[in-house]
Order: sequence, then C-alpha cells, then structure tokens
Amino acid sequence: MAGQTLRPFLTRAATLYPDRAVVARTGDGIDRDTYAGYADRVRRLASALRAVGIDRGDRVATLCWNHDNHFTAYFAVPDLGAQLHTINPLLPADDVQRIVAEAGDRLLFVDPSLVDTLRDAYAPDAFASVERVVVVGADAPDLPLPTTTLTDFVADHGGDYDPPTLDGDDPAGLCYSSGTTGDPKGVAYTQRMLWSHTMAIMTPMGLDIADADVVMPVVPMFHINAWGLPYAATAAGAKQVYPGPSPDPADLVGLIEREGVTLTAGVPTVWLGVLEYLQDHDADLSTLSRIVVGGAAPPERLIRAFDDRGIEVVHGWGMTETAPVGAVSHLKPGLRDADYETQLAKRKKQGLILPGLEFEVVDDDGDTVPHDGEAMGELRVRGPWVAEGYVDGDDGAFDGSWLRTGDVVTVDPDGYVELVDRAADVIKSGGEWISSQAVENAIMSHEAVSEAAVVGVPHERWGERPVVYVVADADRDEDDLIAAAADRVRREFPDWWVPDQFRFVESVPKTATGKFAKTALRERRDEPLSGPVAADPPNDDA
Amino acid sequence: MAGQTLRPFLTRAATLYPDRAVVARTGDGIDRDTYAGYADRVRRLASALRAVGIDRGDRVATLCWNHDNHFTAYFAVPDLGAQLHTINPLLPADDVQRIVAEAGDRLLFVDPSLVDTLRDAYAPDAFASVERVVVVGADAPDLPLPTTTLTDFVADHGGDYDPPTLDGDDPAGLCYSSGTTGDPKGVAYTQRMLWSHTMAIMTPMGLDIADADVVMPVVPMFHINAWGLPYAATAAGAKQVYPGPSPDPADLVGLIEREGVTLTAGVPTVWLGVLEYLQDHDADLSTLSRIVVGGAAPPERLIRAFDDRGIEVVHGWGMTETAPVGAVSHLKPGLRDADYETQLAKRKKQGLILPGLEFEVVDDDGDTVPHDGEAMGELRVRGPWVAEGYVDGDDGAFDGSWLRTGDVVTVDPDGYVELVDRAADVIKSGGEWISSQAVENAIMSHEAVSEAAVVGVPHERWGERPVVYVVADADRDEDDLIAAAADRVRREFPDWWVPDQFRFVESVPKTATGKFAKTALRERRDEPLSGPVAADPPNDDA
Repeated sequence: MAGQTLRPFLTRAATLYPDRAVVARTGDGIDRDTYAGYADRVRRLASALRAVGIDRGDRVATLCWNHDNHFTAYFAVPDLGAQLHTINPLLPADDVQRIVAEAGDRLLFVDPSLVDTLRDAYAPDAFASVERVVVVGADAPDLPLPTTTLTDFVADHGGDYDPPTLDGDDPAGLCYSSGTTGDPKGVAYTQRMLWSHTMAIMTPMGLDIADADVVMPVVPMFHINAWGLPYAATAAGAKQVYPGPSPDPADLVGLIEREGVTLTAGVPTVWLGVLEYLQDHDADLSTLSRIVVGGAAPPERLIRAFDDRGIEVVHGWGMTETAPVGAVSHLKPGLRDADYETQLAKRKKQGLILPGLEFEVVDDDGDTVPHDGEAMGELRVRGPWVAEGYVDGDDGAFDGSWLRTGDVVTVDPDGYVELVDRAADVIKSGGEWISSQAVENAIMSHEAVSEAAVVGVPHERWGERPVVYVVADADRDEDDLIAAAADRVRREFPDWWVPDQFRFVESVPKTATGKFAKTALRERRDEPLSGPVAADPPNDDA
Repeated sequence: MAGQTLRPFLTRAATLYPDRAVVARTGDGIDRDTYAGYADRVRRLASALRAVGIDRGDRVATLCWNHDNHFTAYFAVPDLGAQLHTINPLLPADDVQRIVAEAGDRLLFVDPSLVDTLRDAYAPDAFASVERVVVVGADAPDLPLPTTTLTDFVADHGGDYDPPTLDGDDPAGLCYSSGTTGDPKGVAYTQRMLWSHTMAIMTPMGLDIADADVVMPVVPMFHINAWGLPYAATAAGAKQVYPGPSPDPADLVGLIEREGVTLTAGVPTVWLGVLEYLQDHDADLSTLSRIVVGGAAPPERLIRAFDDRGIEVVHGWGMTETAPVGAVSHLKPGLRDADYETQLAKRKKQGLILPGLEFEVVDDDGDTVPHDGEAMGELRVRGPWVAEGYVDGDDGAFDGSWLRTGDVVTVDPDGYVELVDRAADVIKSGGEWISSQAVENAIMSHEAVSEAAVVGVPHERWGERPVVYVVADADRDEDDLIAAAADRVRREFPDWWVPDQFRFVESVPKTATGKFAKTALRERRDEPLSGPVAADPPNDDA
C-alpha cells in the first residue's frame, strides 16, 4: 500500500475543504487563509527549499511562534522527506548551540521577534552547518549568516513543484526533549510515526477531532509539534487558529470568541491565567467544548472552574519520545454515572493509554506491578509513534522496542495511569519507593508553605531517606510547621514517607523550564541539617 | 517504533476494559464473555494453531457466521502472522473450490450449520491443502477430511503461549472480492493495512467509535472483516454484540434493546426488514444512535424513516481492496444548517474519502474530472489500507500504488463522491458516458416497472447505445410505458440517455449476490428487438 506520510492529509484538506480557514494572529492583526491557499504556500516553500538543495534526511530548523508560516513549514519540510527541527527559543544559548550542532541544521527559519535570541545563541562552530537563515518578516536583519526574507526565498517558486515519492520510513521531524534530567536529547520522527500519532489523536479515545472543530493550539509549535494538533486538525479538515507571538489571556479569549474555537490546548498555567482574566471580563465562550491540558497535571480548581462554564478540561500525558500524546484521561463508560468527586479523581490522572500503544509498569526487579492504584513502578510504552532511540545513538532509555519513560506511576483498577514521580526523583527507602512529588504536594498544601522540594539522601541502613527543602512564611514557627506538615503527609501515606529533615531555605533552585532542580539539591546533601527527625524509619523491625 | 499490528488492540482492551462484554447470540441463547476472557481464548486458540504447525504466512479459513468463536479467530490467526481467510458461504461451490485451492488454506473452521455447505463444496483436488477441519460445535461430523471439534482442538492449550514478534508487514487477512465482474479475486491484508483501517474508522470522520459504544456488526464477518468493526470496536474498548446465525428482524431488535446497542451496520435490505418489523412491534431503540449502511446506496425512505426515530443512517463506501471502508457520508460543517432535503441529497452519496487516503477521478483520457457533481470518471484511491495487487499476481486493476476501483463516480463541489455506475457497465456513446444505473433508477421509478437493467450494445456510429431489459406489470400497455419511462429519463438526463430499445422480459438474470448479471445480458445483444427507438442519437449534428 502507499506510504503512511503527512502529505495526503493536506492534499485531502485542500481538495475536500478548500475554503476552510486557517487563521493566525500576527500581533498587528489576523492572517486569514484557506487549506487551498496553504496547499499552494506549502508547494512554493517546498520548491524553494529543494532549490537550495534541501533533500531527504536533511534538517531544517525553526525558531518560531505559532503562526501561519510555521504551519506552512510543518508540511513543506516533511514534504521533501526532510526533518522539521523545531527549536525551543526558551532554551539556554548553550543548549541551542549543542542541538544545532548535533542536528546539523542546514537552514533555519526565525521570527523577527526571535532574531535576538538567535544572535545570542550564535557561535560559529555550533552553527557551521547552517547555510542560510530565512527571516519570517519584512526585513532581513544583519546576522553572521547568509540571511534572506521568506518573501524573497519563495519568490520564484510556484506551481511546477513535483513532490518526491515518500514512504512511511522517510524522515519527517526532529525535536529535543526538555532535558529536566540531563542534556536535551534529540528524537527523530518518521513520516509513519507522525501519521500514526495523527490518526490516534483524531479518535474519540484520543482528542476526538472532526471537521466541525475549530482547533487553537496554544501549546507552542516548537514544543513537540504543538502536541500534533496542526497535523490532526488538517487531517480532520478542521478550522485552525494560531495565536501568534506571546498571546495574553485577552488575546486567547478574543480568538475563542471571534473564531468560534471548539478545542484548544496548552499547559495549565495558561488556563489559570485565562480564568483570572474571565473573573473581570465578560466573554462568550459558548463554542468552546474542551481544553486539552498537558505538561503538568491540571489543578483541581482549574477543572472545576471550567466545568462550571460547561467546558471540559481534558488531561493528556505524553513526552517528546511519544510524539507526544500517549494517554488521555477520558471518563470510561462505567464512570459516566459516578458522582462528581469520583469523576474528578479520575480526570486528574494522566489517563488511559491510547489505542495502538502497549504499556507496562515495572518495579526495580522488572516485575509488573498490580493495577491497584497504589503499587508504583516505571511506566514503559511502545508502539507505532514511540521512538526507539535518540539521534545521538544513546538508547539507554530504551529496552528493545520499549521506552522507559522515566515516569513513576500507579495504575488503578480502572486502568488509569497516574504519574507520581520522575524515576530519577523517587526515593528508594528500605526496599520501598517514596514519591517525592506526593510528599511535596502534601507539604505544600500547608498554607504557610510556598515551595517544597523533596529529595533522597543516602542513608546507611535504609539506602535513602527523604529530606525536604521548604520555602515558608517568614513568621512561621519551625517546629509547629514541621509537626503540621508531617501530619499532612501521614494522613495520606505511611509514617515512613515523612521526610527525616526539613531544610528551610529562601528559594528552591529551578531549571530553565521552571521545575525544581533536584539534581542541584541532591548535590547539597551534605549541608548541615536543621529540624528534627520527624518520622520513624521504614520497616523498623530491628 | 514497534510494529503496527493487531495484537495490542486486544491486549489493551483486556487490560483497560477486562470486564467489558463481548456477547454473541447463539440461536439457543447468548454467549457472554469479556475482553479478559477473549484474551485468554485467543491465546489458547493461537497456541493450538501453532501446535499443528500454523505459522507466519499460512492461511486459515473460516466458514462461519457472526459469533464469539469467529471473533476469537479474528485475533488468534493474525496473532501468528497467519492470514485469516474468511470464506463467503453464499458463494457457488465452484467458487469456493477455486479460492480454497488458490489460497492453499491449511485449516478450516466451520459452523455446524454450514457443514453441508462445506460438504457440497468439497472436492479432493481443490481441498488438497486442507489438513484439518475444526467444527465450531459439540460434535465432529463425518467429513472427507480430518475433523475435530473446537473444544478438543484447544483442550490442551493455555497460558504458556509465547506470541511471536510481528511487524506491520506481516500477513493478517485474506478476503476474496464478490466477483460481480468476473471470478473472485483474493486480497491479502497485512497487519499494517488492518491497523491503519482500524484507526481510520475509529475517527469521527470514519465511524466515530469510542469505549462507550455498543457495536453490533450485522454485516457478516465473512464479508470483508465485517467492515473492520470487530477490530475497531476492540481497539476502542467498546462492548460488542454478535447476532449469530441467520438473525431475523426480531432478533436484531431484541439485541439492540437488551444489549443497549449504539452502533450497528449492515446492507440496506437488513434495515428495510427491521423497519417493516417495527411497523407492527413496539421497541425501545433509544440507545441506538447510528446505523452504518454500505454495499448499496440506502433508499431515501430508509434514511427518512430512521431519522424520524432519531437514528442516523450513515452511508459508507468501500470494497474488498480497501479493507473495506474508503468513504463515509458525514455532513460537513457548512451543511449542518442546510435544509433537510439538501442534507439528504448529500447523505445518500458515497461520501467523503477518509483522512489518510488519497483519491482522484479520471476520465478515459486519464484526465481528472472537475468536482461539479456532473462529470463522470473512474474513482482511483490509494493509501495505507488500500491493496496494490491481488494474491494471484494480477495487478490489472492497479496503476502503481493507485487502485482503479472500477466505480464510475461524480464528485460534487463539496467533495462528496457519488457512485453512478460500475466502469464495466457504463455506456460509452458518441464520446460521452451514460450511467446505466442512473437510467435504471429513472425507469424503475415508474410504478409498473419492477426491474430494469440497462446495458450498452455495439453501435456503428455511436460506439455503444443503451438498451433496457424491463420487467413490467402484465397488464401494462407497452408503448405507453415506454413513453412514460423515457420521459422520466429525460427529466433528469439528456435526451440521448434514453435507451434505444426496451426489451420486455419475464425476469432479469442475476448473480449469486443478487445483482443484475449484465455480462449475461450483453451476450444477448443480438436478440430480436422489441419496442421503438425512443431517443435521438447523441451529438447528432451530421
């Protein structure tokens, strides 16, 4: 059979939905085009890329926000069997240098507003492979690389483009993982991986996308293909809305209202901001039926607040290595009639692994753990849209076709996966596992605590014991707070999950993406302790 | 990434929906099992098949109705990388012999009620490859082949089955086309083809199948995998209901009511029978939301009657070579607010080609025809679940990766494909095409006409001219009827579409599947004519 490739998705949309709109906020206004228009723009851009020698397996980078021309590149680059390498502009300059050098990007698209980011990241050695920069704007700025504008780049290209025949095994994309547990790792996507992911998230057990939908990806297009929404919305023939550079809550609400958005997606903080905005502003969000949330678990109040407005918050789980969506937390038929609190407890979880994937959860001995909602193990997944290695050849995270996700999870009797910790952060104490995140959440539920980061420190008898770094109100009594916080941990977990030490600090160090820098904390394990030992050691039958 | 194979669909259902039911009407009662139960039955059956030497690429035939053990075979046979060869028990004995011989089936499952069919079809040479018959019933009848019961066959097999590692390219299925235009042709399905088809029909633009659905395939499991529903329902985690041998309308209505069926599927005549039954019987069909209809276009009154009951008739198109679903006639967003008659006109069509496929419609010169709803051409499709050849090596129906469907269609400006004729039946007259089916429908709309079959006969000047074989009421006046019928054709089509001759016959010869045997009719072209020439010849500017 013919290949599983991305091109037919756009061809079909341009044929069956030629007038359906793909719109993008530019900052100054709205760029409004159609699938027929985009099919033409993609042909022109692919033709121009080929004319400068971009070919199968080459890498073309983007340093761009969510907009019309980024969408064009999403189809034009893979149309040649080249890899679209979406670079996260929030990465530190040395990470950008490292990944551009490793990828060997031959051409780089950059937004005018990100030219300075590019300039800051530029280093001659790291960028040695980059032959050309194409600026998605009116003027070509002065850069230490050959630079042109997109308009000039595509000027002489048009209808005579004859696309190459592609196969499912041909390259399509490249994305670097966020690197919270080390350097960013490059994940290459084949046409088949993205094809399979597209079909999967269109299904009702995925994100349920149809032609009647109006899809607005707020999740950045530089972040794992905007969770695959640009491809899936095109495949379904849905209308698409791109929020452009740095949208604020007013921009997002305005786009939802004016364009009739039915489905949008982004990290929880975006929607917390929208909620806050909505407290002071009237808005008609009647078209919006669901908000897909990922990257972090949605706070319960987020789900409740949007439920009150008749908008479903749909929690999904994934990672760069899974292209990215691997699970979605839909309510199973048996839970449709359950009470609201029961439903909420399920909906907060990472959810049900998608059709087409396989999963297992294994403990340190490699045994699968029971689906009792309590036993913890590392989640492993495999399937047609799951990577089996990194571009640098490192396959340490893989076991044959299985991806070790590095996520420690439980699975409840209904099959819902819940992420309880990263494998690197879980504390192994007396042969049992302690979820650092669970303990942090319990301690942070104390009103005097603003931050709590739990790490394991070596312990002669128990292997590791938890220690917590706490940012607390200046006027708190340390002993009272420790007693109260320990009590909160004990309410939900065994006694021996209570940290041995509470270390009061001014702030917890964080990574570039705002997560607790636990590696740095673990290096501070020999600091003098403060606070008493609050818990009995585990399994203390000696 | 790991392969696109069928096994993970069942594994996932058994893990996430272990208690969800798969039920089958047996004739005496109901067989009630769960996905967990089926996972075990599939392992046992696969283990038993392997023990008798069934291996990758082998063919295992079924001569079975829609029931629990057929469903088990749907997963057990492909689990070994063997091909499940579903034989249509309605085929003439010589066709069965031909396809069993060509397939080289090594093992054959047969229902007790179809043992006589097998006996009638048996011929030592044709069945030389068949090593064993497994009867899906209590007793092993006397057959000229080694015969055992299913119970005995799987008796010693259980949990120690270690499934082989499969890939998307491994074999999975085999089905012979119905052969209305020649001998049945074998189409082999790879794991990847069935995986892709499964994902596609789960999407909202396909048949929109979710875990909350209760799916009842009435379309036979021997007929192109029951349109793929057993695989898609499993992938989604839906409840499944199999109607067993020879269900009548009362059986179907009873199953819908008792099992809460939400989606069912079958040819239009099944649902016309159900409608008739419902006229005299009260039934609560409130759970049923849609009936998928294919194989023939649904009569308008079928759609209207079920609309009145709040049940949507969804028209789909496909063929053996497309595994089978290729198009579904959903209403596009722009048509949701259209008046009912406009919607009906779209819903009756074969519909919108599914995401993931490509299509084109070409005329005799190989040029694509405009999407104006009038220009006719042959539909060509290609994609991940479209065959690229037959098992006997005949690739005459294929042009590289394109399948020439043999269906003559129009495409309207909204992109809806409408089948107007089979390519073999279209009449080429004066350089233009006449749809034999369209003319038949116009003539059959006359109340005195019960059957009308239009074929082309050679014509010196125009190439071909249409002739119609008519079955009419005995007391009609021939000339009046011809005049009235010709008038009905002229109302919808150009003058020169009116048949040159009307041939009144007692009955129109039919194929084994009940369609007009036009090949036989064309051989009668030299019969003496009756009736006047009713139309001007086409393009008569001489």
